[in-house]
Amino acid sequence: MESKPLILVTNDDGITAPGIRALLEVVQTLGDVVVVAPDSPQSGMGHAITVNDMLHVKKVSPFGADIMAYSCSGTPVDCVKMGVHELIKRKPDLCVSGINHGSNSSINVIYSGTMSAAVEAGIEGIPAIGFSLQDFSWEANFEPAKKYIRSIVQRVLEEGLPSGTVLNVNFPNLPAEAIKGIRICRQAHAYWQEKFDKRLSPFGKEYYWLTGEFINLDKGEDTDEWALAHGFVSIVPVQFDLTAHHAIPVLNRWNFENE
Amino acid sequence: MESKPLILVTNDDGITAPGIRALLEVVQTLGDVVVVAPDSPQSGMGHAITVNDMLHVKKVSPFGADIMAYSCSGTPVDCVKMGVHELIKRKPDLCVSGINHGSNSSINVIYSGTMSAAVEAGIEGIPAIGFSLQDFSWEANFEPAKKYIRSIVQRVLEEGLPSGTVLNVNFPNLPAEAIKGIRICRQAHAYWQEKFDKRLSPFGKEYYWLTGEFINLDKGEDTDEWALAHGFVSIVPVQFDLTAHHAIPVLNRWNFENE
Repeated sequence: MESKPLILVTNDDGITAPGIRALLEVVQTLGDVVVVAPDSPQSGMGHAITVNDMLHVKKVSPFGADIMAYSCSGTPVDCVKMGVHELIKRKPDLCVSGINHGSNSSINVIYSGTMSAAVEAGIEGIPAIGFSLQDFSWEANFEPAKKYIRSIVQRVLEEGLPSGTVLNVNFPNLPAEAIKGIRICRQAHAYWQEKFDKRLSPFGKEYYWLTGEFINLDKGEDTDEWALAHGFVSIVPVQFDLTAHHAIPVLNRWNFENE
Repeated sequence: MESKPLILVTNDDGITAPGIRALLEVVQTLGDVVVVAPDSPQSGMGHAITVNDMLHVKKVSPFGADIMAYSCSGTPVDCVKMGVHELIKRKPDLCVSGINHGSNSSINVIYSGTMSAAVEAGIEGIPAIGFSLQDFSWEANFEPAKKYIRSIVQRVLEEGLPSGTVLNVNFPNLPAEAIKGIRICRQAHAYWQEKFDKRLSPFGKEYYWLTGEFINLDKGEDTDEWALAHGFVSIVPVQFDLTAHHAIPVLNRWNFENE
């Protein structure tokens, strides 16, 4: 009997988020799934790990008795490490993360707990995909994304992924009939123009909320931002070798004093 | 009168760490400095930002009356955003982060709050350098690093950095006379083999500590791990465009169902 692929499922909005349920509904038809997800929202956690605190893990069954699921007090990256090295007895064939409530296109990949979980799996040699929808709402409509998730997951299970890469998949917030298909893209060069909202507590103490505006000056038609704005699902292959190889010869020409 | 460069100083071990004091001792002779650093240790925070909580900032003077300093309740990345967008009136000419108590070579760059602070500055268009010493101890000896920091900072102030890159500088834990000089390197392909230390609380509840072993199978003499093991200061240029450009043609050959 051919064994089914083992799929580790996680996210950064927490195990109770509708997005992870939507992702599960697709991938549970494609393999055996184990869920290890944060017990509370972990948006913006980037590639954080918990080194100064202990971790708690609880076996839970929010998805029915057939689906093995654990909630974890840590970050999304902790969840992947915990799943792979402690909770699951064999190495997963795939890790999927999401569906995130909100976009992780462009520079957001670097702040994203969803994508950091996928990257962590990639570092551990597991093919991995992060899925995100351009809608922050808890009531976001994940239905149109499902057929693309099925298709992308099937391809990755068949083909694997190029060495040292994971996929960052973003869905435009559009009805199914308005989505034009899939585009392979590069990350748009954009950034956040931060604004800090300064307030006073009832006791007169100042505090801040981080807010900001997304600034994209990169109009390339090969970018994820372009694809999403034009009704496509964007797929960016993401690497975790951060070396700027092109800069090495430049730096080798520098002379350092005192050497 | 020529104005001095403005240097933003941060770290991830917190504003009271000896490492940031050592870094300040060097850079305060090279420009006007402003410190914005976490009020508590933030190791392993990666590129986390605080989106689900408020931030507190306090003007402090642990480095004497001449040095403007702020402690912040957020992550290292929050500190950079807070410094650039709220606390400092002109854009810094340079951001330096560290000196970290512990190595940030190889894959550690991705978990590192020290390096994420530098990367955040880079995203905002500010030349940036993270410095780390291969010694976790609070009593680490930062003296041998100082002449190299001075030399590297001077070069970056003079030359700038190649577009889209920041520097990850690591120092071997050696006496000054044993350090052989500076090497420009690529990030070694290594990873952490995690082990979870499972314990019982006094009340019988299970909890875990994340521990692990660093596994480096990449013996390349152009890697940071090689350089450090052979007595060199390693400099890796780090990029924040995470696109795996080489994987785009591969993925473009895939056929997705249902498109």
